Amino acid sequence: MAMAGRAGSSKKPKESAPTSRTGTDEVTKKALLDATAELLSERSNLEFSQAEVGARSGMSAALVQYHFGSKHGLLAALLEYSSTHYVTQINGLADMTMSATDKLRLHVRGIVTTYTKTPYLDRLLHHLIEASPEEEARRISDFYVGRVIEFYRRLIDQGVAEGVFRRIDPVHLYFILVGTGDHLVARRRLLEPIVGSAGFDSNFARSFGDELFNIVFCGVRAEAATSGDATA
Amino acid sequence: MAMAGRAGSSKKPKESAPTSRTGTDEVTKKALLDATAELLSERSNLEFSQAEVGARSGMSAALVQYHFGSKHGLLAALLEYSSTHYVTQINGLADMTMSATDKLRLHVRGIVTTYTKTPYLDRLLHHLIEASPEEEARRISDFYVGRVIEFYRRLIDQGVAEGVFRRIDPVHLYFILVGTGDHLVARRRLLEPIVGSAGFDSNFARSFGDELFNIVFCGVRAEAATSGDATA
Repeated sequence: MAMAGRAGSSKKPKESAPTSRTGTDEVTKKALLDATAELLSERSNLEFSQAEVGARSGMSAALVQYHFGSKHGLLAALLEYSSTHYVTQINGLADMTMSATDKLRLHVRGIVTTYTKTPYLDRLLHHLIEASPEEEARRISDFYVGRVIEFYRRLIDQGVAEGVFRRIDPVHLYFILVGTGDHLVARRRLLEPIVGSAGFDSNFARSFGDELFNIVFCGVRAEAATSGDATA
Repeated sequence: MAMAGRAGSSKKPKESAPTSRTGTDEVTKKALLDATAELLSERSNLEFSQAEVGARSGMSAALVQYHFGSKHGLLAALLEYSSTHYVTQINGLADMTMSATDKLRLHVRGIVTTYTKTPYLDRLLHHLIEASPEEEARRISDFYVGRVIEFYRRLIDQGVAEGVFRRIDPVHLYFILVGTGDHLVARRRLLEPIVGSAGFDSNFARSFGDELFNIVFCGVRAEAATSGDATA
């Protein structure tokens, strides 16, 4: 890591900041997070320096230390910042009055959109779970992984109750949907020499999202043949 | 990287090694490759030192430099060494007299087995494509990615001709199958706090492989409903 973790060394005042200052702080933090997100989107790892974040945001690199305390703090804040839409969508979908099929369709589209916009998401999540103290790692895992699996569990229950889905394992569904979404962005460079970088435009994301839904939807349908019975 | 790349600095004699020496060389190289594979299977990155490979193999660390020239050379050799079975299976399946459905089933089982045994495979492939000079990167991509996509293209053609598959994009199939396989191992630690490490035993790999085949097979079937028609 280019920046040493120094959580707790932040000199940020805890209270009593006047409102206008708080507003400026939020603008500054957002600019630093956007700059970090841009840098990570261009790379296939999590290597960057405070100086790069400063240069990209047009601000002093020292503000990273001031606002986030350490690189670890910056990355933890980035995970929360980048996944707000995704987490909100999952929470919203779970409670919505809508067929399980439509929920699955919207969720698959959401996964492809999320990973296309934030290609570093899974990498960041994985790093934070490995690099955080046990209790914090557990909290991150519960929040970002446990919640998705719980959503799948309820979605499958609903689909089964509606007579549309088979009862499949939510962990299996997690690996197929999230694994595919992550691979789509994390390993894209592997395919560029073959497909051409122009092959990965927004049309690809849309058509791939549609196909992923089609395949998974057909695969989980209640009447789906298993083990290749069609060839028997 | 812990070891600087020094391709070309190998002092290995090019010819005239007596047969017994060649045999010993092969045994040594295999031991070094096995030790590297073990180290990478335990980690989620490609960071390791020559000294660690030496210690793990019970041999002198200098033999890495002697046999592979550099860390890059060692990793390139490991990719070839680790993927032999996978590449052989794909080549063999493509030409086999067997239904497209059975080829798909064997291939999916092969992917789950391959990624379970060599969890570092995609990480290694990705690194070598990014770190190699353009021509070498292109060769690796053609060999390891292009060949798989070509296999999918022929498999889909066969399935369509047999009236069993829909015509789907082989690149879509690549992301779903290879993405899922890679995620299954690369991001497993994300799920361990929730599923428990005992949840990822050989039974999980088998049942997950069966489910992945079921879902993908049902999803690519010619009669599969698209876009959730079942709810219309």
